[in-house]
Amino acid sequence: MTSDSAQSLPFETIGIVGCGLIGCSIAAGLKYRGFPGRIIGCGRSGPNLEMAADRGYVDVVETDFSQVGRLCDLVVVCTPVDHIVDDVRTAARNCRPGLLITDTGSVKRAICEPLSRDLPAGATYIGSHPIAGSEKQGCSHANPDLFFGHVCVLTPAESTPAYEIARLDAFWQSLGMKVVRMSPEAHDRALAQTSHVPHVVAAALAASLDPEIRHLTAGGFLDTTRIAVGDPELWAAILGANAGEVSMGIRTLCSRLATFLDVLEKGDRTALTHLLRIAKQDREAAAALAPGRHQHRTGAP
Amino acid sequence: MTSDSAQSLPFETIGIVGCGLIGCSIAAGLKYRGFPGRIIGCGRSGPNLEMAADRGYVDVVETDFSQVGRLCDLVVVCTPVDHIVDDVRTAARNCRPGLLITDTGSVKRAICEPLSRDLPAGATYIGSHPIAGSEKQGCSHANPDLFFGHVCVLTPAESTPAYEIARLDAFWQSLGMKVVRMSPEAHDRALAQTSHVPHVVAAALAASLDPEIRHLTAGGFLDTTRIAVGDPELWAAILGANAGEVSMGIRTLCSRLATFLDVLEKGDRTALTHLLRIAKQDREAAAALAPGRHQHRTGAP
Repeated sequence: MTSDSAQSLPFETIGIVGCGLIGCSIAAGLKYRGFPGRIIGCGRSGPNLEMAADRGYVDVVETDFSQVGRLCDLVVVCTPVDHIVDDVRTAARNCRPGLLITDTGSVKRAICEPLSRDLPAGATYIGSHPIAGSEKQGCSHANPDLFFGHVCVLTPAESTPAYEIARLDAFWQSLGMKVVRMSPEAHDRALAQTSHVPHVVAAALAASLDPEIRHLTAGGFLDTTRIAVGDPELWAAILGANAGEVSMGIRTLCSRLATFLDVLEKGDRTALTHLLRIAKQDREAAAALAPGRHQHRTGAP
Repeated sequence: MTSDSAQSLPFETIGIVGCGLIGCSIAAGLKYRGFPGRIIGCGRSGPNLEMAADRGYVDVVETDFSQVGRLCDLVVVCTPVDHIVDDVRTAARNCRPGLLITDTGSVKRAICEPLSRDLPAGATYIGSHPIAGSEKQGCSHANPDLFFGHVCVLTPAESTPAYEIARLDAFWQSLGMKVVRMSPEAHDRALAQTSHVPHVVAAALAASLDPEIRHLTAGGFLDTTRIAVGDPELWAAILGANAGEVSMGIRTLCSRLATFLDVLEKGDRTALTHLLRIAKQDREAAAALAPGRHQHRTGAP
């Protein structure tokens, strides 16, 4: 199997629980990469679920979350982070033996810890976080290449069978992802820095702007605050579920801002240039490792 | 004259001092909008000045800054902020009577205050800040539409003759800009919020990232830190020249971050959602007022 084909995945029926941007992008990505099996879209009845079926991202729709585990050999739970634990449990309730369940939540400890207990026999849960997304929401923004070239973090437990991890590796690789493994704790510590603290900072900057000078913003302000338009409920759940690491990250940032403050107040131009030069190098190093946002197109509409 | 034509500007010869991104974008914008007069590109000899002439952005090149005021009726100084005061004085030294001089610096008080004294008789200086730019530099990235739809702040003194302000209004409007007037102090206070503090924050975030988790960044981190790749020397000069307002802005931001910290540590999900919702609304309001980045194209190559 190539790293960007879903033609020979070791699954016959894949359930997508939650048919928003992430769930539908996964389903669309599988279809466009030739997944020959069946995809069941599971969600509350509504426009997302209808559109997922109309566009052919999913073959069947199901509104009863407790049925999906019975019908599938892989279930991917793509609901908001504060629903995932319940949704995984519901999906596992009536499962067929050998069911593998994963999720796409942006936090892992608060999800993996409770799910390490009390799952029905026959079901295996492994946490996933495909690090890609958009501030846009809903099936209408689904993109079969949303994940291509991005990193997916798996957070298996020590007791997780190696072949289940390998099956899940293959799944994310089929969407063009690079898979890495971390503990849930290491994941949450890293994502606080790469995503959650930047979100808080963008929000704090956006909210600090006096309304009467809004017309004086330009591209820099808009870029720096872009992620602040993300859904407040979803992000409150993410930040709340990683509050300890996010708090620590905010403190680290504030102490770096204090260094800038100190240098500015001393008028030490050499030190200021040095701080900015380090930051520029760090940003360039991060950008060099990050996947291009439009690196690959399947030619999908 | 329409607001987007340079065909009947009240200037015959315009001097551009500093032929980098900003200077060459002004020259290119004038040419593409039909400016019938002569444009003199003034700078140190080197690739930028050569390219400005080769591409036809300027008609004549001049490396002696003290000659440009003698040859022009408008001089636009587009050099780094810490060079502007000297370059305006040099340009004014041998000026012809009625010379109007402006600049494009991102700070205004540190420039307008010294220039309110000691200019040769016959020369009038008015500060300008066309709020548009790019983290890219040099003549090779010049864009005749860089300014289109953006705001230009003028900071005339109380004693500045109204007809000189009107001539400068017409100049920036010919590039498609909306012109507003502010005091240098009000400009610097506003720009600290809309541009200078976001720059410091982007730099602090970029430099806070542990190198070993760079591969876990995605679009959100890259957007939030994009402006940190700006030139360290240029930005140290800008931040240094507006240190008081920038320091105050950093303190304001830190106190807003402290509010987030408080809410996170209390686990108050409702308050967290509320903070994020306000930020989202503020960001959307700013974006609604900001010009589209690719709003207009002249069809220029």
